[in-house]
Amino acid sequence: MGVVTKEQLAGMSYEDFIQIFGNVIEHCAICSAAVWAKRPFYNLKELHSAICTFVDELPKIGREGILRLHPDLAGRIAELGRLTSESSKEQLSAGLNDITVEEKSVLQALNDRYKSKFGFPFVICARENKKQAILSGIAARVENDKDVELATGIAEVKKIAFYRLLDIVEHSDEEAKL
Amino acid sequence: MGVVTKEQLAGMSYEDFIQIFGNVIEHCAICSAAVWAKRPFYNLKELHSAICTFVDELPKIGREGILRLHPDLAGRIAELGRLTSESSKEQLSAGLNDITVEEKSVLQALNDRYKSKFGFPFVICARENKKQAILSGIAARVENDKDVELATGIAEVKKIAFYRLLDIVEHSDEEAKL
Repeated sequence: MGVVTKEQLAGMSYEDFIQIFGNVIEHCAICSAAVWAKRPFYNLKELHSAICTFVDELPKIGREGILRLHPDLAGRIAELGRLTSESSKEQLSAGLNDITVEEKSVLQALNDRYKSKFGFPFVICARENKKQAILSGIAARVENDKDVELATGIAEVKKIAFYRLLDIVEHSDEEAKL
Repeated sequence: MGVVTKEQLAGMSYEDFIQIFGNVIEHCAICSAAVWAKRPFYNLKELHSAICTFVDELPKIGREGILRLHPDLAGRIAELGRLTSESSKEQLSAGLNDITVEEKSVLQALNDRYKSKFGFPFVICARENKKQAILSGIAARVENDKDVELATGIAEVKKIAFYRLLDIVEHSDEEAKL
């Protein structure tokens, strides 16, 4: 269960709202800062829906920018221990801490190819995918074209946001279904 | 003079670009992450222009969100010493460190009224305005309507961004004119 009650969610100052929901989209506090204008939200699905709508209404380069603000999976930022707490937890849940030297080398080579082709990193919801699914996912997705990968990456971002909201806002079992 | 040469500006990875320009718009790294797609930039005016265009093309609540990510002038975040280095320098240049107890009380009361009326904080380019101009500015602007203040605040954000870019990118005297 989350720590913010539905009553708190419905009546929050923008300062508290940004403080609490600022990293629901990785490094994109503007998403929560913007959708505060659409308050009140009575449950996490309403808030998630508002965030998704805002993301969809960004200029295309804005959606690309969202992907560029995501860290590489098992990449340099993770090695330096400088991931956001949310990303760190997600990469851990996917088993990326147990990656072998060989797997890491494969993942990094594929991600370099992916970034070089698309101009943004491979983004996948690590809570729904374990290490092997991530490795096979990037190998398949790097063959797509850019528009497909922008749409796919953004769909993953929305799933990541949903799970992050689940960690923050109290919810019923029904509301916990994506 | 700035620290990034024009040659460096024109050929930067998105990771370096975001690292260097991520706070040109306060707490809105997405602005630099997005406009990297419009590279190459050959001077700071081209980069500033791309950032301004991106801001203008955001949904209206996105521009409101940009304002909401700015700290209150001489506010709680400043008192706690938790301003970004850019904001700290700007508030210092405006003389807000020398504010009297009475002036601070007036400024905070006006800003509370401003935030309560508009749903975002008063934003002004502190490098172009000293303490007295800020105090008279907020007293006048709080009487405007919300659309005027959204436009005025965003125009100030663009000026702030220009001065931040001047601190980062090498430039000619001509390019230093806003």
